[in-house]
Amino acid sequence: MERFSSISMAVVRRLPKYHRYLSELKKNDVKRVSSQELSRITGFTASQIRQDLNCFGGFGQQGYGYNVDDLHQQISKILGLDKVYKTVIVGAGNLGQAIVNYTFFEKSGFVPQAIFDVNPRLIGLKINDIKVHDVENLESFVKDNGIDIGIICTPKSQCQKVAEALAKGGVQGIWNFAPSDVSVPDDIIVENVHLSESLFTISYLLKEREEVLKTKKY
Amino acid sequence: MERFSSISMAVVRRLPKYHRYLSELKKNDVKRVSSQELSRITGFTASQIRQDLNCFGGFGQQGYGYNVDDLHQQISKILGLDKVYKTVIVGAGNLGQAIVNYTFFEKSGFVPQAIFDVNPRLIGLKINDIKVHDVENLESFVKDNGIDIGIICTPKSQCQKVAEALAKGGVQGIWNFAPSDVSVPDDIIVENVHLSESLFTISYLLKEREEVLKTKKY
Repeated sequence: MERFSSISMAVVRRLPKYHRYLSELKKNDVKRVSSQELSRITGFTASQIRQDLNCFGGFGQQGYGYNVDDLHQQISKILGLDKVYKTVIVGAGNLGQAIVNYTFFEKSGFVPQAIFDVNPRLIGLKINDIKVHDVENLESFVKDNGIDIGIICTPKSQCQKVAEALAKGGVQGIWNFAPSDVSVPDDIIVENVHLSESLFTISYLLKEREEVLKTKKY
Repeated sequence: MERFSSISMAVVRRLPKYHRYLSELKKNDVKRVSSQELSRITGFTASQIRQDLNCFGGFGQQGYGYNVDDLHQQISKILGLDKVYKTVIVGAGNLGQAIVNYTFFEKSGFVPQAIFDVNPRLIGLKINDIKVHDVENLESFVKDNGIDIGIICTPKSQCQKVAEALAKGGVQGIWNFAPSDVSVPDDIIVENVHLSESLFTISYLLKEREEVLKTKKY
């Protein structure tokens, strides 16, 4: 998927962080911010921040810093957050429900159109006002409703089948929470959230931490 | 948190991926694997893989490749997965429930001891056999039960207070799903899962994709 990006994925992955911090500043009615202040808030160096923002033309002024509203709006636009995306959530378990109920995503332009599940007891119910459909109808629903992004919240055993139905239906992107990779045509963006990889990073760091603390004692 | 790691975080973050792919190979009864095959499966280059594994002493043999069982066990050990970690989940909403119900974490050694919430209607209930406690008792529970890792699944408004209670109670690590950073003493490992950052990466890539596909047409 990274081949679509003309700038480095490391930079791309920092943009949502800038966006989040700028949203906070906006909410606190802060009007302007220097790269030094952004550095203090974000933990990135000021030169890293200037370099990142320069990739997109650079919005700061020497001696003034950045206009918070402007920079927030520019980064929103760069991130494609000035558009609306139709989504479907596949898997109405706890995780699927968590995503449907997290209204921040909808406010950011990612609007759920339907939920899909295999469980007949769930089909027909509504979660946060979004109807649960039979997963059998996934491909046709995606096609008929011009769905942009499919969100996979199924067990591992189902995720490849679901990804294929989403792809055939014509989604442009897949957000995959199943603990397995999915294989789809090259022109579909796939973003995986493998939670165990994040958790195992903690256990690695706990082990290293223990060794460092042990050494310090002597 | 990265100061505890003697090797680069980029390498550390690839280890859980190797672990996952090796688990698959093990399950399929594959006995040995070359770095070329690992490259095909993981998408990393063979030289990247050899280099990564060399950071920890290198387990391969020229002309033979890697013994799948051995390598899996070694990486498990490096990731600290040969130990058991006591966890608490704070926030019994959909996300907290998803984590409690995802038994893979428990099988990997991360064993939930309790869930905490503010909602009196949830307190006293059990989710996947784990009791929901009043969040008022979080700090003392963590202290009395030697909890290693606190998992924050609360709304943004509560996460800093919860992180402080976890820190005072003596956790070594925090897995934070709240959409905000938390500030705790330096010797506590904090791993954030900011889902919006992952979602916004998709919208960025969709926008880039559209531009690339548009250019291709002409």
